[in-house]
Amino acid sequence: MKPILLTGDRPTGCLHLGHYIGSLQNRLALQDRYKSYIMIADWQALTDYADRPERITSNVLEVAKDYLSIGIDPAKSTIFIQSQIPQLAELSLLFLNLVTVARLERNPTVKNEIQQKGFEQSIPAGFFCYPVSQAADITLFQAQFVPVGDDQLPMIEQTNEIVRKFHRLYGEGILQECQAVLSEKSGRLVGIDGKAKASKSLGNAIFLSESADQIQQKVFQMYTDSEHIRVNDPGTVEGNVVFAYLDAFHPDQAEVANLKEHYQRGGLGDMTLKRLLNQTLQAFLGPIRERREAFHDDDVRQVLFQGTTQARIDAEKTMSRVRQAIGLEYFA
Amino acid sequence: MKPILLTGDRPTGCLHLGHYIGSLQNRLALQDRYKSYIMIADWQALTDYADRPERITSNVLEVAKDYLSIGIDPAKSTIFIQSQIPQLAELSLLFLNLVTVARLERNPTVKNEIQQKGFEQSIPAGFFCYPVSQAADITLFQAQFVPVGDDQLPMIEQTNEIVRKFHRLYGEGILQECQAVLSEKSGRLVGIDGKAKASKSLGNAIFLSESADQIQQKVFQMYTDSEHIRVNDPGTVEGNVVFAYLDAFHPDQAEVANLKEHYQRGGLGDMTLKRLLNQTLQAFLGPIRERREAFHDDDVRQVLFQGTTQARIDAEKTMSRVRQAIGLEYFA
Repeated sequence: MKPILLTGDRPTGCLHLGHYIGSLQNRLALQDRYKSYIMIADWQALTDYADRPERITSNVLEVAKDYLSIGIDPAKSTIFIQSQIPQLAELSLLFLNLVTVARLERNPTVKNEIQQKGFEQSIPAGFFCYPVSQAADITLFQAQFVPVGDDQLPMIEQTNEIVRKFHRLYGEGILQECQAVLSEKSGRLVGIDGKAKASKSLGNAIFLSESADQIQQKVFQMYTDSEHIRVNDPGTVEGNVVFAYLDAFHPDQAEVANLKEHYQRGGLGDMTLKRLLNQTLQAFLGPIRERREAFHDDDVRQVLFQGTTQARIDAEKTMSRVRQAIGLEYFA
Repeated sequence: MKPILLTGDRPTGCLHLGHYIGSLQNRLALQDRYKSYIMIADWQALTDYADRPERITSNVLEVAKDYLSIGIDPAKSTIFIQSQIPQLAELSLLFLNLVTVARLERNPTVKNEIQQKGFEQSIPAGFFCYPVSQAADITLFQAQFVPVGDDQLPMIEQTNEIVRKFHRLYGEGILQECQAVLSEKSGRLVGIDGKAKASKSLGNAIFLSESADQIQQKVFQMYTDSEHIRVNDPGTVEGNVVFAYLDAFHPDQAEVANLKEHYQRGGLGDMTLKRLLNQTLQAFLGPIRERREAFHDDDVRQVLFQGTTQARIDAEKTMSRVRQAIGLEYFA
């Protein structure tokens, strides 16, 4: 049997090239070797979007379309909607008893995110507790592998602490400890403004579903090198967004190396480079967009329905063992 | 339609006379006028008994037997087991997003209980969050009335705050605000040691299921008045446990008033009083114990199964409206 992997996204918007580089390409590479659960984490997104639920719920179908359009195969990967798995809530509630408030306060990932989101004194309790829900997400599906960035390693540790405590109290072998998959292919993609990581909220990302015109427009807006005034001036490659995208998406990296040399030497114009990047991204995103447009909403909903139904069956298997271990099966 | 009321007990042990005076007699008095949900709160008990689940799970059936033996009528009251209603976990999870950590920290009931239980720095997150789960318990059943003691009033306020916030965010009329029923018939019963409220953990309670011998033994152990050495000495009624129990259980309160006068005057012996109390309690508890012994476990389990099935149907009605209001119904 293939090892089990859990991954997913918060449906706060359509997915973009930053997601592709950060996780989606890795997910594609892994889908043959692992039995993957891909969770559209609407409940988790509601922990900080409780006042804007339509932002979350309206993007669930879009995210699923993004998955399918890049080649996630529902025959290999179970794509499901988090909020449709009540067992996740049940297990979260039981896990909350195994973690102290002091331990949650110490979680560095939560600390950081609280700061980033500017919650300060008004952290929603759901957000504060989300490492516990995340532990439930992972363990309910018996996932042994979770692809994460370095900043998410404390979450894995927290999950395994809960699993060990659960086993100590209720008997061994019910749940799985998990480990991080530090991805072979993944990284951070800078936004088109060159200032920060590409993100929807900063408006500096190119979406997987973007039209040809929009792609071209965004490429032509890209930050290059403000010192590179005339074509013959030598240019700088570091911090040059166009090169960052060519590094990430151009199929011939030897050619990119030549271009970098030429640019640094002088004589290679920004417009020439941008036209090349535009071609590259059109060639990459065109087929994705076409596949995306070919899907009917009802077909995508059907994929989600089947994945969610399967996920619920698998979740119930674990949850039934959990209830039995604690003694919560009164009518069995 | 009758107004809806939610009440219940944590199944940490069999119920005793303290429960009877504190809540059960009131519950009996109300069961004709209200549609009552009586919840055996095993999940809530696990928030501070996570390391001793068998203490909780083994008492679920006992508590149900106690209910039936005092005359709770399953045709009038829906008796159900909390952990068997997954919608409660689901609603709790969504409610956690509507409450800040700072607000939970300020809840006086939680503050007190944390102190009483000596948790200090190691409060389980589940215990910390239980006002939120309690709000889910109440609102999921659309309960308008909740019988509580004065010390639980902050819980009612917390629940209504959540309901108002839910309505503000997701639309009005989905949930019910609730109010406390300050009971007509209820009070605190002192333990047989006279030192504290009767409680299982202090070992100073008389259980509803106690045998005739045990009742007599406990009555004869009761604290009376340590200054009342000889029968002819004047005795003190205040703090005298035997009188506290006669006040609570003797059917003729005029006779109790006469006895108090006699005792204060001198000439009424402790043994005479204790024999009278023993008779009183035997008369009260005998029929309860007999009914209790007449129940087969399977019959009680059947009552719980039917109540829990009904509760789950009613819970799903509310939960379905909640999901719809937030937009979490993707396959409807």
